Amino acid sequence: MKSTSNEIRGFRFSSVPAGIKASAPDRLDFGLIVADVPAITAGVTTTNLVCAAPAAITKERLGIGECQAVLANSGNANAYTGEIGRRDAIELTGEAARVLGIAPELVVPMSTGVIGTHLPVTRMRTRIPDLVDGLHESRFLDFARAIMTTDTRPKTVRLDGDLSHCPVRIRGVAKGSGMIAPKMATMLAVILVDVRVELAFLRECLIEANSTSFDCITIDGDTSTNDTLLVMAGGHTDAPDLGGGQTDRIRFSKMLVQACGDLARQIVMDGEGATKLVEIRVTGARNTEDASRVARTIAESLLVKTAFAGEDPNWGRIIAAAGRAGVGFNPDRVDLSIGNVSVVSEGKLASGDWEPRAAQVMKQREFSIVLNLRSGSADAAFLTSDLSEEYVRINADYRT
Amino acid sequence: MKSTSNEIRGFRFSSVPAGIKASAPDRLDFGLIVADVPAITAGVTTTNLVCAAPAAITKERLGIGECQAVLANSGNANAYTGEIGRRDAIELTGEAARVLGIAPELVVPMSTGVIGTHLPVTRMRTRIPDLVDGLHESRFLDFARAIMTTDTRPKTVRLDGDLSHCPVRIRGVAKGSGMIAPKMATMLAVILVDVRVELAFLRECLIEANSTSFDCITIDGDTSTNDTLLVMAGGHTDAPDLGGGQTDRIRFSKMLVQACGDLARQIVMDGEGATKLVEIRVTGARNTEDASRVARTIAESLLVKTAFAGEDPNWGRIIAAAGRAGVGFNPDRVDLSIGNVSVVSEGKLASGDWEPRAAQVMKQREFSIVLNLRSGSADAAFLTSDLSEEYVRINADYRT
Repeated sequence: MKSTSNEIRGFRFSSVPAGIKASAPDRLDFGLIVADVPAITAGVTTTNLVCAAPAAITKERLGIGECQAVLANSGNANAYTGEIGRRDAIELTGEAARVLGIAPELVVPMSTGVIGTHLPVTRMRTRIPDLVDGLHESRFLDFARAIMTTDTRPKTVRLDGDLSHCPVRIRGVAKGSGMIAPKMATMLAVILVDVRVELAFLRECLIEANSTSFDCITIDGDTSTNDTLLVMAGGHTDAPDLGGGQTDRIRFSKMLVQACGDLARQIVMDGEGATKLVEIRVTGARNTEDASRVARTIAESLLVKTAFAGEDPNWGRIIAAAGRAGVGFNPDRVDLSIGNVSVVSEGKLASGDWEPRAAQVMKQREFSIVLNLRSGSADAAFLTSDLSEEYVRINADYRT
Repeated sequence: MKSTSNEIRGFRFSSVPAGIKASAPDRLDFGLIVADVPAITAGVTTTNLVCAAPAAITKERLGIGECQAVLANSGNANAYTGEIGRRDAIELTGEAARVLGIAPELVVPMSTGVIGTHLPVTRMRTRIPDLVDGLHESRFLDFARAIMTTDTRPKTVRLDGDLSHCPVRIRGVAKGSGMIAPKMATMLAVILVDVRVELAFLRECLIEANSTSFDCITIDGDTSTNDTLLVMAGGHTDAPDLGGGQTDRIRFSKMLVQACGDLARQIVMDGEGATKLVEIRVTGARNTEDASRVARTIAESLLVKTAFAGEDPNWGRIIAAAGRAGVGFNPDRVDLSIGNVSVVSEGKLASGDWEPRAAQVMKQREFSIVLNLRSGSADAAFLTSDLSEEYVRINADYRT
C-alpha cells in the first residue's frame, strides 16, 4: 500500500529563513525535525580529519543511541571554526532543547555551506521559537529545501512496506551536490522510520545501507567536512517494535538499503553542473575491495567524466583509469561495455558500428559502464556524474 | 657561458608531417633524434598497468643502457593496441634502424595521442627515409613541435655549465598538457647531455631529478599509459667523460634536476585550459611521504583547482582537502598562506584585510600556497594548474 504523503507518524518538521547567507535573506535556510519521543538513532559522520563542529557534536551525542530533534542549517558549514564554532552549535541546539522542553543532548546539529565562517548565532537564535511554533507533520518538503545549497532540487525518498505485524514507513531527506565523495556518509541525510528498531541492529543496517549507497558515489572526489547520515527509528509514543523475526529484519534492512540508494542517486543526479548519471560497475575482480577501488578510480577520473559530458565513447580513458587504480589485473583480457554495447571483449576492440551505437547510449541522461576484469568473481558499483563546464562555473565563484 | 643555441654536439633532429591524425595531415607529427654514437641512456616509464607498446619496448631496450635514436610520434599513443601495436612499433623502429644503419635495439619508440587506435604504419614507414634525410643539428625545436598534442607550445630547456675539465651542455624536450599525473615520468621527455656519464650514476641522477619534477606535477590526476622520460648522455665519438670527481658529479646532478624541473613546470603552465601555475608546498610534516601525500591531495582537488580558476581565496577547501589526505595532523594548529599573505595561523583565521590581499595574489599567473602542518620538519611541493571551463571544453571533444 503506497502512501502519497510525505508524512510519517511521530515526526514533525519546520523551516524558516534566517538570513544565514547575507546575499539570500529570504531563502529557507534553517530547519528542524522533532520526534514526539526520543527515537532510536544510529548515524555515521565524515572521516575527514577536518570535522566540522556540528558533525563532531552529532557523533558524540549519537553515543547514547537516541535523538529527538535535528537542528539543521544551510549557507554556513560551521566547519573549521574552532572553539567558537563548537560553542555556537551547542548554544543553538541548547536553545532549541529549551524551547522544546527536552534534554539538550537529544538535539543534534547539522550544518552545510561555506567553510571557515562563524554562524550568525544571534540572528539564528531569535528564529528558534518560530521554528518550534511552525512544526507540522506536513512540512517535510520545506525542511528538505532548507538544507539545500547548490542543490537545484530537494531530495526526498518515501517507502511504504508491511512487516508481519504492522505497516512500516520510511521517509528520507538528503542534500548534496558538490564536495561529494563521501567516506562514511554524504553531506547531510536523515532517514525516519515509524517503527522502533533495536539500536545494535539499526546500526548494522545503517552501515550496510551506507556502504552500497552514499559510500559509492562521487561528484568531485572531495570528501566534505560535514558529512552526516542519521536514521531515527520510532518517533511516537506507541510506535510498534520491529521485533526479532528474521523476515521482518531482512525486509526492513532492504528498505533502508533502498532508501539510502535512492537518495544517493538523487545526489549524483543533481551533482553540480551534472547532465548525466553514470553507473560504473566493475565485475570479475579478485575481491570487493579491488572492484570498488577500480570503480572509484574510473568514477573520479576527470578525463572519463569530461568524456561523459562530451558524449564521447572514449573507452581508452576508462581502461587507462582502471590501469592506474593500483589493482592487479590483465588489461589485455578485460571486457568493457557502454550500456548494452560491447566495446572491448577479452581485450579486443569490437569491430563494426560499436562507436555510433555507444555514442547513442551516452546521449541518455542515465547509463551504465561495465568493466569485467576477468580476475575473479567480486563486483562493486559506483555512481558518478559527468564533469561539465557548468561545474567549473559554479565552483569558480561559489563564495562570491 | 650561456649558449643561445639549442644545438648540442653529437645529436641531430628531424621531423615531418606523416598524416597520423587524419584531420591534420600537414602538422609535424613524426620526429627523430639521432646520436652520432650510442649514448649512455637511462629512463623511466609509466607505472600504469595499461602500458602502451612503445613505453613497454622502450623499457626493455633501456636494459642495455644504451640508445642511439628516438623515433617519436604524436596523434596516436599506440596504447591498448595489443600484439599488433607491439609489432607496429618494432617494425617502425626496425625500419629507422635499417635506414640509419644501426642495430634495431638502439632505437626506442615514443608515441602520444589517442588510445586504442592502430598506427598508420604504412604511411609512417614511407616517411622514415625523409626523416633520416632531414636530420640536422639545428632542428631541435621542430622535433619539440612534432610531439605536441593539445600542447599549445613546444617545451624545451637549455642549460650550459662547466665541469672542472670541460664545459657541459644539457638540452631537454618534453610534451604534455593532459593526462598528467606522472607516477614515474611525464608523457614524453628526452634530456640530452654532451658528456658521457657512467650508467649507474646516470640512473641515480635521473631518479632523483624525476622525483622532484615530473613526479610532483598534476594537471588532471590521470596517469598516462605512455609516460616516458629518457636521458641520453654523450652522443658524439669524442664526448668527454663526466668523471668520478664529487664536485662535477654534484654539479651535473643539479643541472639535471634543474632541467627536469624546468620542463615539468612548462608542462603544468601549458596544462589544458590552465591559466595559473600554482605551487602547493607542504611543510612541517612528520615525513616526506606525508608531506607529498597532502600536497598531492590538495593539488588534485577539483574544488581547490576551480577556486584557483575563480581567483577565490577559498582556504576552507584547501584545508578540507588536506584533511582527507589520510595523513595525521592537527587541523587546528596549521598555518596557511597564499603567496605572502598569512591566511590561517596556528589554526586561527587571520583578521584584517587578508582576503582582498590573498585575492590579489591569486590574480597572478603564478603563485604559491604554503601549508605548515606543524607536526614535524619534512616538506614537499607539488605543481598544479587551475581547472577552467576550457579544460572541460578540450576534453569533452578530444577525439572528435
